[in-house]
Amino acid sequence: MKSDIDRLMRERDLDAFIVFGGEEFNSARYYLSNGAKITHGTIVKARDGETLLVCSGIEYAEAQKSSLPVKTSAELGYHDRLQEADNKATAATALFFGDLLRAVGLRSGRVGLYGSWQVNKTIRLYQLLATQSQYEFVAEGSPTVIETAMLTKDAQEIARMKSVARRSNAVMQAVWDFLGGLRQAGEFLLDEAGERVTIGMVKDLARRELMARGLEDTGMIFAQGADGGSPHSRGEADMPLQAGQAIVFDLFPRELGGGYHHDMTRTWCVGYAPPEVQAAYDTVREAFDIAIEAYGLNKPAHLMQEIVQDHFEARGHATSRSDPKTLHGYMHSLGHGVGIDIHERPSISHLARKDIFEIGNVFSIEPGLYYPDQGFGVRVEDLFVIDETGQLVSLTTFRKDLVIPLRDKA
Amino acid sequence: MKSDIDRLMRERDLDAFIVFGGEEFNSARYYLSNGAKITHGTIVKARDGETLLVCSGIEYAEAQKSSLPVKTSAELGYHDRLQEADNKATAATALFFGDLLRAVGLRSGRVGLYGSWQVNKTIRLYQLLATQSQYEFVAEGSPTVIETAMLTKDAQEIARMKSVARRSNAVMQAVWDFLGGLRQAGEFLLDEAGERVTIGMVKDLARRELMARGLEDTGMIFAQGADGGSPHSRGEADMPLQAGQAIVFDLFPRELGGGYHHDMTRTWCVGYAPPEVQAAYDTVREAFDIAIEAYGLNKPAHLMQEIVQDHFEARGHATSRSDPKTLHGYMHSLGHGVGIDIHERPSISHLARKDIFEIGNVFSIEPGLYYPDQGFGVRVEDLFVIDETGQLVSLTTFRKDLVIPLRDKA
Repeated sequence: MKSDIDRLMRERDLDAFIVFGGEEFNSARYYLSNGAKITHGTIVKARDGETLLVCSGIEYAEAQKSSLPVKTSAELGYHDRLQEADNKATAATALFFGDLLRAVGLRSGRVGLYGSWQVNKTIRLYQLLATQSQYEFVAEGSPTVIETAMLTKDAQEIARMKSVARRSNAVMQAVWDFLGGLRQAGEFLLDEAGERVTIGMVKDLARRELMARGLEDTGMIFAQGADGGSPHSRGEADMPLQAGQAIVFDLFPRELGGGYHHDMTRTWCVGYAPPEVQAAYDTVREAFDIAIEAYGLNKPAHLMQEIVQDHFEARGHATSRSDPKTLHGYMHSLGHGVGIDIHERPSISHLARKDIFEIGNVFSIEPGLYYPDQGFGVRVEDLFVIDETGQLVSLTTFRKDLVIPLRDKA
Repeated sequence: MKSDIDRLMRERDLDAFIVFGGEEFNSARYYLSNGAKITHGTIVKARDGETLLVCSGIEYAEAQKSSLPVKTSAELGYHDRLQEADNKATAATALFFGDLLRAVGLRSGRVGLYGSWQVNKTIRLYQLLATQSQYEFVAEGSPTVIETAMLTKDAQEIARMKSVARRSNAVMQAVWDFLGGLRQAGEFLLDEAGERVTIGMVKDLARRELMARGLEDTGMIFAQGADGGSPHSRGEADMPLQAGQAIVFDLFPRELGGGYHHDMTRTWCVGYAPPEVQAAYDTVREAFDIAIEAYGLNKPAHLMQEIVQDHFEARGHATSRSDPKTLHGYMHSLGHGVGIDIHERPSISHLARKDIFEIGNVFSIEPGLYYPDQGFGVRVEDLFVIDETGQLVSLTTFRKDLVIPLRDKA
């Protein structure tokens, strides 16, 4: 958590770090600035020192809401550097980073670089920084100091994520209620006005329900039939819903304007489930339960994935372990950390062997089976937190029924 | 525009490029993949060759909607590279980039690198790429080949931006209508239910109106009084609206799920305008008209800013040219390109002297005056396109009245 940062810097022999970047959503900056609504801004911190936020004058008022000390780049001499560098922004920035480090008291040492930015700008800046011999600029591998801190959520972060979870569960319920209230006509499903309900209409409803609860969609999946058989297909807006088709609904909203996420998936069949979908769903539910049973505090995360892969392979399904190129069966990670980013550490994958389960981790468990050629996919996903006693606790309380019964049978 | 890319690559002596990155919104990838809804994926293109999109199997179905040729990373041997690199993702990616280049027929040459990614990962990858002696990996300065292509929009892009503009203007009208229908009670403004209307309520309304038109907010500013005197203050959700206060409403939504933006600002006083606000507003409106008069096809963009700075300085206002550290007066760029990114080239700034106005540019013109100590700021912003005849055409048709009259006077 955030309070670990100085210790992590010491362990990795870092004297300071700088977080920078452009207008891309920058989770490291969001995290360290306590969610300040700034589009630019650089953070500099010396080990055991304060975290200084530096921004342009026009963002000063928002930056101050971070509760960090704030200075404007003009105040710290950026404009002089710009002149010195003949108005070349990257060259000026490289010089200015030295000013920033001196502003937090560092005259030499090892400096970590974090943030998100355009790759060409990052490389050019790094090339210029590398010529400043008093500092050694370090590009850490993953998980970095910041990623490691983000890996264990503190009480305040968990409270926010529980709130996002409650609201996401309520949106799921609203969509379930809407679908259960439809009327079947042949294979199609009609709303009160007698119109065929499409995926686009359901997504619009879900977005309105999210917004009414202070959340925003970040690209939900509502994929029916063969589309649900492709794990990251989003679903076709114009496609009409049909009874008895498997629908994969993966909802991963975040706090409005950027912030903490929830992540959950349900698979639904409206009215009835075909036997092959029910069978696959039962196998995935078993995998889900097996994964939870395999949990242990301080256990390597990848073991959980391998037990699930054993389960699927024993039942004749291909996995990305048995065949890395497979496009059916089970071919993704079992889960991933969730927070300000939708994909964080820990990674529950047989290819990532470093992460162990720690108190404060928040991560998804999401086994699935995908048979696009048979016209369906199924996935079930809850978000879990490892609480202060080391217990694995689900934040996703919403029911796991496969079939949404129609209240008004045609 | 996109059709210029091969020519631009030739002019800059680039044999190929690779666009990569993580889950950050990646405008270069969005642009080249025609908006494919993928969270990962790499693009590789040799000069005069096709644009190949490479993604993981689970994103294959969405990637195919790009209308580009698509291959999975498994198909191109990424898993072998991962094994070879002992499961180290960055090392595997560096090797895999060589595979990608060979897949488009390039065995040696100069390769541009574009996209958005975490800075530490970019630097590590670049260090590894630099050891592949058959290729020279190039980090272009701005504007890159991709940014230069994006600088001139084609007919299809302009049609999309006109549609976003029409919908944004309609949202402005909806908010105007709502505010004009309020009832004044003392200094406060009440809705039909007799409740004091807050900034948060207005933003919620604007977001619902955007969503109903297939648009999404990306952080609108609705800042009243002294908050509007700080150009990038977003506005306090809990603050009640008051008659006679200057409100800066800067709306810059984009197509739902990522896509083209509109950008417009109006300054409003509900009921009446105090004389000092009216005077500042008149000066800004003059600046706006002066800027448009200063437009000329192929003229350097920075001249437009300098003429506006002359205008403000002659009337006794500080500018960021006369005092780079000023926090009042006029201290930002006159405008910026708008497209898939909210801030693109051209830059209309006295510090950026490279950009000239070209057919297909879409950019904002947004003079303002800011006096936080006097409790107000004003800004007016339209989005313009340079049409195929070289004319400057506003996409922002919404009225520029300062005062919203109250229909129901208390």
